[in-house]
This record gives sequence, C-alpha cells and structure tokens, in this order.
Amino acid sequence: MKKLLALLLVVVLGLSCATFVTAEEAKAPKYVFMFIGDGMGTPQITATEYYLSTIENADKPFPMPRALSFTTFPYVGIMTTMDATSFLPDSASTASSMASGIKTASGVINYTVNDALETQEPVKTITEYAKEAGKKIGIVTSVTTNHATPAAYYAKVPSRNQYYDIAKQFVESKVDFIGGGGFGSPDNKGKDKNIYEVAAEANINIVDGSDAIRNIEATDERTIAKVCDGAMLYEVDRLAELEKGNDIASLADVTKAAIKAVDNDENGFFIMVEGGKIDWACHANDAYTSIMDTVAISDAVQVAIDFMDEHPDETLIVVTGDHETGGLTIGFATTEYDSHYEVLANQKLSYEKFTSIIASWREEGGKTFEEALAFVKENYGLTTEADQLTTLTDTDIQKLKEAFEVSMSGLASSDQTAAQKLAYGGYEPFSMIVSRIINNKAGLDYTSYSHTGLQIPVFAKGVGSELFTGLYDNTDIFSKTMTAMRLADKISQK
Amino acid sequence: MKKLLALLLVVVLGLSCATFVTAEEAKAPKYVFMFIGDGMGTPQITATEYYLSTIENADKPFPMPRALSFTTFPYVGIMTTMDATSFLPDSASTASSMASGIKTASGVINYTVNDALETQEPVKTITEYAKEAGKKIGIVTSVTTNHATPAAYYAKVPSRNQYYDIAKQFVESKVDFIGGGGFGSPDNKGKDKNIYEVAAEANINIVDGSDAIRNIEATDERTIAKVCDGAMLYEVDRLAELEKGNDIASLADVTKAAIKAVDNDENGFFIMVEGGKIDWACHANDAYTSIMDTVAISDAVQVAIDFMDEHPDETLIVVTGDHETGGLTIGFATTEYDSHYEVLANQKLSYEKFTSIIASWREEGGKTFEEALAFVKENYGLTTEADQLTTLTDTDIQKLKEAFEVSMSGLASSDQTAAQKLAYGGYEPFSMIVSRIINNKAGLDYTSYSHTGLQIPVFAKGVGSELFTGLYDNTDIFSKTMTAMRLADKISQK
Repeated sequence: MKKLLALLLVVVLGLSCATFVTAEEAKAPKYVFMFIGDGMGTPQITATEYYLSTIENADKPFPMPRALSFTTFPYVGIMTTMDATSFLPDSASTASSMASGIKTASGVINYTVNDALETQEPVKTITEYAKEAGKKIGIVTSVTTNHATPAAYYAKVPSRNQYYDIAKQFVESKVDFIGGGGFGSPDNKGKDKNIYEVAAEANINIVDGSDAIRNIEATDERTIAKVCDGAMLYEVDRLAELEKGNDIASLADVTKAAIKAVDNDENGFFIMVEGGKIDWACHANDAYTSIMDTVAISDAVQVAIDFMDEHPDETLIVVTGDHETGGLTIGFATTEYDSHYEVLANQKLSYEKFTSIIASWREEGGKTFEEALAFVKENYGLTTEADQLTTLTDTDIQKLKEAFEVSMSGLASSDQTAAQKLAYGGYEPFSMIVSRIINNKAGLDYTSYSHTGLQIPVFAKGVGSELFTGLYDNTDIFSKTMTAMRLADKISQK
Repeated sequence: MKKLLALLLVVVLGLSCATFVTAEEAKAPKYVFMFIGDGMGTPQITATEYYLSTIENADKPFPMPRALSFTTFPYVGIMTTMDATSFLPDSASTASSMASGIKTASGVINYTVNDALETQEPVKTITEYAKEAGKKIGIVTSVTTNHATPAAYYAKVPSRNQYYDIAKQFVESKVDFIGGGGFGSPDNKGKDKNIYEVAAEANINIVDGSDAIRNIEATDERTIAKVCDGAMLYEVDRLAELEKGNDIASLADVTKAAIKAVDNDENGFFIMVEGGKIDWACHANDAYTSIMDTVAISDAVQVAIDFMDEHPDETLIVVTGDHETGGLTIGFATTEYDSHYEVLANQKLSYEKFTSIIASWREEGGKTFEEALAFVKENYGLTTEADQLTTLTDTDIQKLKEAFEVSMSGLASSDQTAAQKLAYGGYEPFSMIVSRIINNKAGLDYTSYSHTGLQIPVFAKGVGSELFTGLYDNTDIFSKTMTAMRLADKISQK
C-alpha cells in the first residue's frame, strides 16, 4: 500500500511537473527581446504578408497564406495606444508607456504629466530594472539612436526634441549596446562637444560602419555601433545598393551584432529592436517602402528566433508596434474586390530617394514632364501604354502634371492652397502623387499623413509569452514583461 | 508515513485538479456561442470603443479606455480572411470557412471549388456536427435570415443569391431556431409558394414581431422568429423609434429569445449570432451607424456573457468578424492627431433612412439646397455657423451642392462620370457626402465601398477559449471550435 501510494505520488508529481506550471511559477526568461515596428499595425502586417504571398505564388490560382517570422507566434494580443494627449498618440509617449508603464503626453519621454499635461516626475524604465537584475541591455534601431522610441529605453526628458540631452543620457546610462543609425544632432548644432567624443572619453567603444558591425565580438565594454550617420537606409534603398555591390548592414545584421556584443552574462540580456522607418514611409504614404521595412523587421525577429532555437527554454520574444501610421487600408474604391500587389514590385526606390532626385531636377533647372514620366515608368512601372495594371489614366496624368508643376516651382507647402496641402501633405508633390497612384493600382490606400488611433497587434513566443494574449493597454506591455521577468514586485512607480 | 503520503497525495491531486488541465483533456463546452460582426474589424471596434469613451468621459482631461462586452475576453487572436477568389473576400465564402472549414470562392456557400473556381461538392457544417452531438442549434441575424452569413450555418448552395433555395434548405434542415429579420425573397418573386407557408406545413412555429419574440418560451418545436419582414432596423434607427415609444426588438432581444427557445436539452446548444449591418453601414461609409450596430452586437454578446455567468464551466463564447468593410481608419489628413468623435452623437438617422427621405424629396419635386442644409443641421449637426467642430467649410458646401444636384436629378449611378462614381460609390450622392463630411470632422475616414483584406480580430472566453489565440486562418475557426467541442475526430471532409 505504501509502495502503491508512493508510486502514485511519483506519477502525479511527474505529470504535475510536466504541465502544472502557472505564469507566476514559470522560470523567468534569461533572454528578452522586445521588437517595435514604429507605425506597424495590422494593415502594415497584412499588406506585407499579402504582397509577399502574391509575388511568391504568381502561378497559384488562389491567394496563398504567407506568414512573417513573428505572425506564427503562439500568442497574440491587441493593444490600445492612446496617450494622455490624444487617441492618436506619438512615438515618445507610446514608447514610454511600453518602457516604463506610464501614460504620458505626446512628445514626452518617461516623465509623468498632470491633468494640464505639464511634465512632473521622471520614472524608472524596464531597462533599468533589467540592469539591476543583472541583465545586459542592448538597443537597436533603424533610425537615429536618440530618436523617440530607442530614447524611451534609456532616457527621461520632457521633450523628445532634446536630442543632445538624450544622447548625453545614453553616455551616462548603463546600457551596454546601442546600434543602428547614428546619433542625430551629435554636436547640438555646433553648440556642444561632439557626442562621440563625449562617449569615447567615457570609455565607450565606437564601432563604425557595416563591416565593423558584422565583425563585432562579445565585450564588457559599452558599445555604440553605427551603420552610418543619421538613420539607416530604407530597406528598398539598401537592397538597391546591394544590387550595385554595396553591402550595407541591415536591421537583422545590427540585431545579430547586439546579441554578439551582450551575450556574455550569466543573467542574460534585454534587447529592444525598433524598425523605425515603417512609420516614416507611412507618413509619406509610400506603401511599398513600408512593406519592405516590415520585411526588414521580420528578418530581424528571425535572428531572435534563431537565438531562441539555441536557448529554447530561456527566451521571450515580444513583437508589436507603437501605433499605426497613415491610415493604411487593404482596399481601394476603384479596385473594389481585387488586389494587384504585384505592381508594387516595380518600385525601385523610396519616396525619400525620389524626393532627393526631384530636388536635383529642380536645382538643375527642371525636367520636362515627359522626362519625369519616363523616370516614373522606369522606377515605378507606371505607364501611358494602354490596358496594363499600371496604366496611367487621364485623371492620373492630370494629377501628376499638377504635382510636377508644383514640385518644379519649389512652392513651399506653407504657401500651398488647402487642396494642395491635403493632396501633398507637406511632402514633395510629384513623389507623393506617384506613391498614391501606385498604392491605389495595387489596391491599397491611406487616409492620413499622421499616426492613427488603430489598436495594435502584439505577438509573443517563449517563456512568459502566454501573458500577452487578450486586449490591453500599451502600459501593460511594461507590466507583462516585468511579470514575465519576475520583476513585477520591484516596480516602484505608478 | 502512510498518512503523510496520503495527505501529500491529496494536496498534490487537489492542486493538479485545479490547474492540471490541457485543452484536449478539458470538458467540452455544453453551450457554444459564435458571434460574427459582418464587416467588423479592428477599425470598427476601435472606433466604437473610442466613440463611447469620448461621449461617456466628456469631463475627463485624458482619453479614457472603454471596453466593449467582448474586448475584455481573456484570449485574442487574429485571422486571415482571404477566400479562393481574392484577398478581399465576401461574406458567403468567409462564413463558409468558419462554418465548414473550407476555402471557397466569393459568393459560394459550403461548396468546395476547383482551381477554376467551379463549385464541386457540398460540405458538412459545424451545426450539423453539433446537431449530431445532440446539441440544439440557434441562428440569429440582424439581416434577412437567408442572407449569406446565417445561410452558411444551415445551407449549401453554389450561389448566395439562391435566396429561396436557401430558405427552403432551412425548412429541410434540423436547425431548431432562426431569428432576426425575415426571409428575403419569401415567395421567390411570386414564382413559388410563400416560404412561411412551406415552413408552417413542416410544423415550424412562426413567431412574428417584437412582443412575441420577447415572450418566447423553451420549445421542442422548430421556430422561425422574425422581428419584421426584411432586415432589422439599424440600431440608430431602432433607438430613434424607441424615443418615439416604438420598442422594437434588438439583436440582444433576439439573442435572448434564441437562448430561451433552445435551452432545454441535456446536450446544450450551439448558437450563431450575426450583427449583419455593420457591413452594410460601412459599405455606405456611414461610420456612426456602423458604430451603433457594433454597440448592438456588443449588447448581444453581453446576453451570452450573462448566460455564461450562470453556466461558468460549460460555456464557450467566440466573437469575430468575417472581413473588414470600407477600409475604415481611425484618423484623417485634416484632423491630423486630433479626434472629435463627439460630433457623431449629432447624427440622428442611418444613411438608409436619409436615402429614403432624399428619395421622397425628389419624388415631391425637390427641396431647395437651403432646405436640405437645414435638414443636415437638424439631423447631423453640420452647420454653416463659424468656428464649430461641425462647421461646413466652403469646400464641404461645394461638394454638398454638387451631390445635392445629382441627388435631385435622380441621375443613375451607371450614368455618372468616373469622378462621380468614385465620390458616391453608387449610393445616394447627397447622403454619401454628408456621411463623409461628418466622418472626417470626427477624425475617421474610409477608402473603399467594398470589403477589404484586413486581418480580423477574434475574442474568446470560456471552455476551450485558449485555443483561439495566435494568428490563423478563418478556416481554423471551424477546426478550433470543433476541437473545443471535442468533435474534431468526427470531421469527415477536407
């Protein structure tokens, strides 16, 4: 009887150990990855999946599913993103909510605000808690490393525009690695010492350029790794450079470098990776460029998944956006129930590169409209030939002509009519109309040049990922991640 | 020692029983609710939550969270909705995917298709499996009961337009209760016997009108419960009738009636409830009407939640949409980072009712534009007075004037210019422009008059609800619900 009971106990305990594990009792993840696609909502993800599906399955009779690296994650949630200022928030307040669990005003980084939206007190961030718990900290972004989203993971400032102050706070912080673009405003417009000199004096290792970043090793020194000055290239422009033989580091490459640099501590690490230019492309209503930058963050997440495969019971990966940008939709009035995402594959450059090309036309005394249309055919596939998916209608050509004249005149957006402001959104008029036309021919459209209030998906995999289903607020990203790391009892603010 | 072991065993077993339960081993839910908001994606849900938050918290300095009944559910998923025809599917194919687990072509109900999209074989639906498992079946919809979505839960036809065939298949089916709107085309345009006569001859009980529906009792007879002929009113128009003292049954009332009618079987029930007019309102780009119909389905879900509270360990509730409609976004170019959802509260009627009023103006020989603007001020709050959130700009008035002239002329949409077709989408021009203007003043916009391809959220609560997180295909709604009901081994098709 005693033996039977003992055996039964062993069996029951065995079963219990295998499955009887609640979130609170589970092991904390040693390695935590937080990916933020700036401006990446369900529309951006849907558009990217359906574009890839279309070009990869051109011979299939039906639309085919095509996942991104993170859309197969086992847990999905949805997040509200309103900040203290608006249902349509900015990247400073939303990143603060995720990094420190507070609701704050648009433009504010890790400071509380009162009812009049005046800044009050700085708050402690998840990277500080993680550092105190012994983890190394890595921060990666495709934009400048003192831009709002990365800044929220190491700095506290009343205004996101305090770029030099933010960069100085990085130097003073305990963050082990920061990489991607360079620091914006590195010498505060000539008013202060260059931030890289300040960093070098603080014994921070500066790793400069793609080759150096690819060859990074684990180190106990703090590291700044910049692919270039300013923001990294849009993925579409990086791929164009690669075709020319210029192999610039990608967001995935910098993510690999971050892991290599900080993966040398018994307590593991917390790494935040931002795909920051999905947002910028969507502000400019450039759908294809945003799709390719969504592919870039998907590739960066794949690096973390590969790492997780080697550390399967010790890793948590969370992927989300901070807000939607542009009001992207997966349908347009004239295309009705059809989509032609394959036309996007004709686009060879970002609106940003096209804008600089148009500026050179203007500076060189202008191109003819016919020359401009020839460029558009070459670089976007839009054509005056009849009966193509990419055929320009008379209305298209009229709009292009109007925009081209405004672009060549150099008329500042502040001097434009209300109708012109609505049509061009402060961007280079000719580039904007080309983007809008190719979007619409693909069966996509935007309604805004700003962020929108759309609720945002969250994808999670690994240790503690079960906490991330349900619909919750962006401040819960902080509390859920702290809970997963078993640091919730340390939270001193709120 | 024996006592200690026994005690330990009891403790361990007790803990195990409380928590050691996997999806496969859990009890199947006795009661299953499937709610489908037709055209209800994240934009529709976000807009509804933020509208309610705004009007309920007018005195609060910050935007406040405001959940719908189902957005607090513990499990959230996201669903792809493409069908065999397009990334932008229709309600017949998507409802078929959820009801029988197949991918089929737009317009097809529960038939497979080949690569040429020709219909092949009918397939078995979840309501047939549930019926074979002994459950009673209830179907509720705010539109006509032989419309695509409800039809997919009892009929199999190559075309959703076979309305009379679908209604006859209901009579021949084993579905216990169907309620909401009446059958569309009840006598097949005079070519066949009235379907209600056919039903009565088959001993189906016909419950007619709001009072009778509210007084329904449990029965072993099969029941058709119609609030009215055709589709039920839009919630905004139902509430306007209620203010006049005419208390018409709501979607929640019909849901209550469905539960009362079928809750008398030891094996429980499967009830599908469709909020069918969110879609119709979004086709017409009428945001406020879609918001109020989203409130109506949220109220109907609350009825299921109340039922679950009485049957906490026996109930599963799943809430989703079939596709997004209209390309609704939570932002507009001119409102930028602001929203003014409170202006929507000025809207007193649906586009449908306004359309019928405009038709009466036309038939009575036309109104003056000034009279029309006075109506718009009274019923939408849009005004020519300066400096209001609802102030009509010169551009607004110009567009209203053009639309008013087209509306009064009765010009068929087939005879309109391409620009007019794009602006009015085949709807009553004056009503469409009024809707668009009030949407934009609130900070909302649409990009299409059709369904879009946006991925759709799923919310689940109760027994088996943990199956519904992750990102998956709409066909998985069928397989996950079958798994939750422990009927997955019965699946004979696919």
